Amino acid sequence: MEYIGITMGDPAGIGAEVALKALNSNYNFKGKYIIYGSLNVLEYYINLLNIKKSINVIKNISEFDERTINIFNVYNVDLDKFKIGKISPICGLAAYKYIEAAIRDALNGNIGAIVTAPINKEALHLSGHNFNGHTEIFAKLTNTNKYAMMLIGGPLKVIHVSTHTSLKNACEKVKKERVVDVIQLAYDTLKKMKIDNPRIAVAGLNPHAGESGLFGMEEIKEIIPAIEEAKKLNINVEGPIPPDTVFIKAVKNYYDIIVVMYHDQGHIPVKLLGFDTGVNITVGLPIVRTSVDHGTAFDIAGKGIANEKSMVEAMKTAELFL
Amino acid sequence: MEYIGITMGDPAGIGAEVALKALNSNYNFKGKYIIYGSLNVLEYYINLLNIKKSINVIKNISEFDERTINIFNVYNVDLDKFKIGKISPICGLAAYKYIEAAIRDALNGNIGAIVTAPINKEALHLSGHNFNGHTEIFAKLTNTNKYAMMLIGGPLKVIHVSTHTSLKNACEKVKKERVVDVIQLAYDTLKKMKIDNPRIAVAGLNPHAGESGLFGMEEIKEIIPAIEEAKKLNINVEGPIPPDTVFIKAVKNYYDIIVVMYHDQGHIPVKLLGFDTGVNITVGLPIVRTSVDHGTAFDIAGKGIANEKSMVEAMKTAELFL
Repeated sequence: MEYIGITMGDPAGIGAEVALKALNSNYNFKGKYIIYGSLNVLEYYINLLNIKKSINVIKNISEFDERTINIFNVYNVDLDKFKIGKISPICGLAAYKYIEAAIRDALNGNIGAIVTAPINKEALHLSGHNFNGHTEIFAKLTNTNKYAMMLIGGPLKVIHVSTHTSLKNACEKVKKERVVDVIQLAYDTLKKMKIDNPRIAVAGLNPHAGESGLFGMEEIKEIIPAIEEAKKLNINVEGPIPPDTVFIKAVKNYYDIIVVMYHDQGHIPVKLLGFDTGVNITVGLPIVRTSVDHGTAFDIAGKGIANEKSMVEAMKTAELFL
Repeated sequence: MEYIGITMGDPAGIGAEVALKALNSNYNFKGKYIIYGSLNVLEYYINLLNIKKSINVIKNISEFDERTINIFNVYNVDLDKFKIGKISPICGLAAYKYIEAAIRDALNGNIGAIVTAPINKEALHLSGHNFNGHTEIFAKLTNTNKYAMMLIGGPLKVIHVSTHTSLKNACEKVKKERVVDVIQLAYDTLKKMKIDNPRIAVAGLNPHAGESGLFGMEEIKEIIPAIEEAKKLNINVEGPIPPDTVFIKAVKNYYDIIVVMYHDQGHIPVKLLGFDTGVNITVGLPIVRTSVDHGTAFDIAGKGIANEKSMVEAMKTAELFL
């Protein structure tokens, strides 16, 4: 399945711009891309960016034409009805509908992966869709319970035991069963990305990985038992490694991926080494979903100055799963 | 005061080796260095490393001779009584005595700063000195209550609200009063390092710096009030900044230092960008203390292959305070 959907994201953000810039340039993509979005908004950016390719509005994948920009005009928004760079319920609704349509097509097997452009949480909520973000929408609409956020940037791949919760709650979420699940998700995902016998490191939660219980018991009570269980499943896994050295070792290519215990343990090193090119993957879903690692960037939207690097990386990452 | 003491650290570790390598090379040091250590051990490494400079054992600073390696033979250990690369009580005791002597000389005004080579905590405990590390010894012997660990590596300087405690406890330690103290310590220290009107960033504790209370309340209850109070003291301070972007901004030179909330929030980025050259400073003491950012490295001790870069950086950092 070589077709990949790109959801346009919030029409007031930089999603349409980075998608068009990526598709208009010579990045040697292997996938065949269709944008799920709004014809009005895409035409606006085609003019703004002086793009010579024409738009091909399709109703069915069979109408795909690779010389053009192919789009499903899922929910067209009128540029007079909202302001670029501003939060609005109509844009929140539109962003939701693009995702919903792409998920439906992925579940039906019409497309093999989805790359998402950024949405605005407040706009989404104003439209009546009370999700925390893409991940929650994908989990709900695909009926998925076990999933995790993987982040790729520069030389690093990380996968999170928890993400958008307070650090205190994140400590509580370090439980053996969840850690085993995330190790397994890391293993399964890297196998799908054609990495044989992936080398998985597990970071500790506490400084020095707890220093034998001196600085916290989670390593002894939860993380080490989880690693032991994963080893029994014949997974090549090591840890817990002190959080301040595990990333250096990964940069030196000791590991293919690091299981991290909380949002910033993974986000700090990946953003530092992979700035502008980060890719976010929701793993554990029945479909492949990659995403840019930035927001709607309302401050620069509509100016033609957004950088498409992260979108290109998200597209190339989705192709690894085809 | 241009004299600087170097404590030799655990005789079984790499301290003597990295100190001698630093002093024997052409690093254009501004300070006049005296090693607090053991003549036997230093002579062993002088031979091993084929160093041509002679050793000048002094009893008093006035005997300092800059053509030589100057040492206070504080507590001489016999190489037959311990094994290089192994934990022993005699080495723990020796390491303690070097620190004690240097602190006494610094408090007396004989030396202007102390650079410490690594010690082994277990050896220290075996010798009957139940400290967690250098910082606690310095705090005790100088009667200091308010202090913090600053870490310098690559383009980053960070200062920690807490260090060697579980992550759960670290969350509890994020209190307004402590955060104000650490901002003040950052300010005072950078002033001493001749940075005018230092630009201080404060990282959040939680992902996205709590996202307005959605992912934790510490920013609203403790960190923001602390920043407001520090601003009233005319300190140029900003925050709370999301932990996964604040380091990128510091690398781009928006800030001179980042106040971090826990050990790994500071250690992960500094070690990643400043590997091999990290320097640790205990700030808030009545004396200047800098340190290498590595351990005793028992696995490579006695082989002549230890890297002196971190020691050189620690020495150059101490000189900034002269």
